[in-house]
Amino acid sequence: MRVTILGLGLIGGSVARALRSSTDWPIVAWSERGAGPAAAASEGIVDRAAPGLADAVRDAELVVLGAPPLACLDLLDRLAELSGRDLSPDATVTDLASTKAAIAARADAAGLPFVGGHPMAGREASGFSASTSDLFAGRPWVTAAGRHARPVDAERVAALVGACGARQVALDPAEHDALVAGVSHLPLVVAAALVEAVAGAPGGPPAGDWAAARELAAGGWRDSTRVARGDATMAAGIAATNAPALVARLRAMRDAIDSWIADLDAAGGPDPGRLAERFEASRRRLGQKP
Amino acid sequence: MRVTILGLGLIGGSVARALRSSTDWPIVAWSERGAGPAAAASEGIVDRAAPGLADAVRDAELVVLGAPPLACLDLLDRLAELSGRDLSPDATVTDLASTKAAIAARADAAGLPFVGGHPMAGREASGFSASTSDLFAGRPWVTAAGRHARPVDAERVAALVGACGARQVALDPAEHDALVAGVSHLPLVVAAALVEAVAGAPGGPPAGDWAAARELAAGGWRDSTRVARGDATMAAGIAATNAPALVARLRAMRDAIDSWIADLDAAGGPDPGRLAERFEASRRRLGQKP
Repeated sequence: MRVTILGLGLIGGSVARALRSSTDWPIVAWSERGAGPAAAASEGIVDRAAPGLADAVRDAELVVLGAPPLACLDLLDRLAELSGRDLSPDATVTDLASTKAAIAARADAAGLPFVGGHPMAGREASGFSASTSDLFAGRPWVTAAGRHARPVDAERVAALVGACGARQVALDPAEHDALVAGVSHLPLVVAAALVEAVAGAPGGPPAGDWAAARELAAGGWRDSTRVARGDATMAAGIAATNAPALVARLRAMRDAIDSWIADLDAAGGPDPGRLAERFEASRRRLGQKP
Repeated sequence: MRVTILGLGLIGGSVARALRSSTDWPIVAWSERGAGPAAAASEGIVDRAAPGLADAVRDAELVVLGAPPLACLDLLDRLAELSGRDLSPDATVTDLASTKAAIAARADAAGLPFVGGHPMAGREASGFSASTSDLFAGRPWVTAAGRHARPVDAERVAALVGACGARQVALDPAEHDALVAGVSHLPLVVAAALVEAVAGAPGGPPAGDWAAARELAAGGWRDSTRVARGDATMAAGIAATNAPALVARLRAMRDAIDSWIADLDAAGGPDPGRLAERFEASRRRLGQKP
């Protein structure tokens, strides 16, 4: 299968490495800046760093968008213009981004044969230099078909997932977005909100006691804010392209916090037994085997 | 200095190990169940596992409460009864618990010479078997003096902190509680609330999509909920004895979440540039050197 990867950072680069180590598929890479593809070509991870987008997709059977959500929307617009010319109408388009409904809708509107993908794996580090061939090994990889997907598109994307050593989970795009809004995007916004609540609101000065508080911060603070240390533009693109599902989850989060305030602010003081039951209930949910 | 440690789990046990490796101080240990002291005595980490509380504190110059917050309150009541009898009026009382104001107030009410302590270190594992001699090495250790503290009490507690290799940070009890409410106790409740919002409220069935969602959970979910996997009774005791400061932080957290909802639910859709600035602001706060 002739594969073209557009965008070769951590995720796209890890796909290239995985394919190189497990298949003999020819791989072409292109990115806006070109640094990842150049490095990959010189390492032999891809066969060719293409000089431009039209050149990159020519002859491709599978085009993989290795960009963040908002950049995927732009790439789809550009692919729509190339479709039937440099981009074969037979080619399958997929992506690796964290949200699916907005991206699938854009591909649908452009008439592109699209089966989106979301490998559920990542690292804090970013860029092609952080990519590894085993990033997706054993991990779930959600696939979500657009309206113009044909059986061959589903087969090609399934082959991609398999070649990366991942476990395919087929979902409807909206279903995917609702699920990851909870376990992935809500934690991202909650971590940022936690920093704002403790260290100071954005745009203002740091909270008066932040310098003293951060001296006392230990492992709990570090774990709870880890996802807030990631790429801000990427996080914004994820939140912007999954806003309705995320807002629903944030409302549920606010309700949970209100209910904790009610328990802690109870007349006569909080009931430690009730608080312990509540903490224990969360602990049990986390421990339940799926 | 003759030291008695009451409660010998992860934290009390780690203090015993640190003292044993860096001093020649005689150490007596006692706990309600007795398992930790027995193990420590057989390993030579303490000189003696005392058969009872009165026996344990006899001749002690420094009594260290190695128990969670609510158990510390009970221990202080029992020490008050022993004071002037088995417990010398000259003895200093300290603790290792995560909240300070309620505990210092109880010691004050009992007339005990108290300088509280809170070593800012921990592990997910618990119990004496998880204790290590270097748990506190280089970590902050807050001390907070009660009303009846004398210079000798401050000196003894400073010697304890130093012998454990920690860095003393002297604070007022209320000041300590306000700071850790932000960087330590708020993350604990937020993690539990996050689980409730995504996996289902306590007391009810799991959320309908929790089984599917947890299949997709990756590192972000794991990091963000890690502190919710800890000891529920301990968490409840911390929250119950620091409720007012914690409620104030939870209100700030709710405001931050409301403001994210406003940004994401904006008429005409969210502004990715504004979201990116907001994520970036949190990222910068976390990165600022103290």
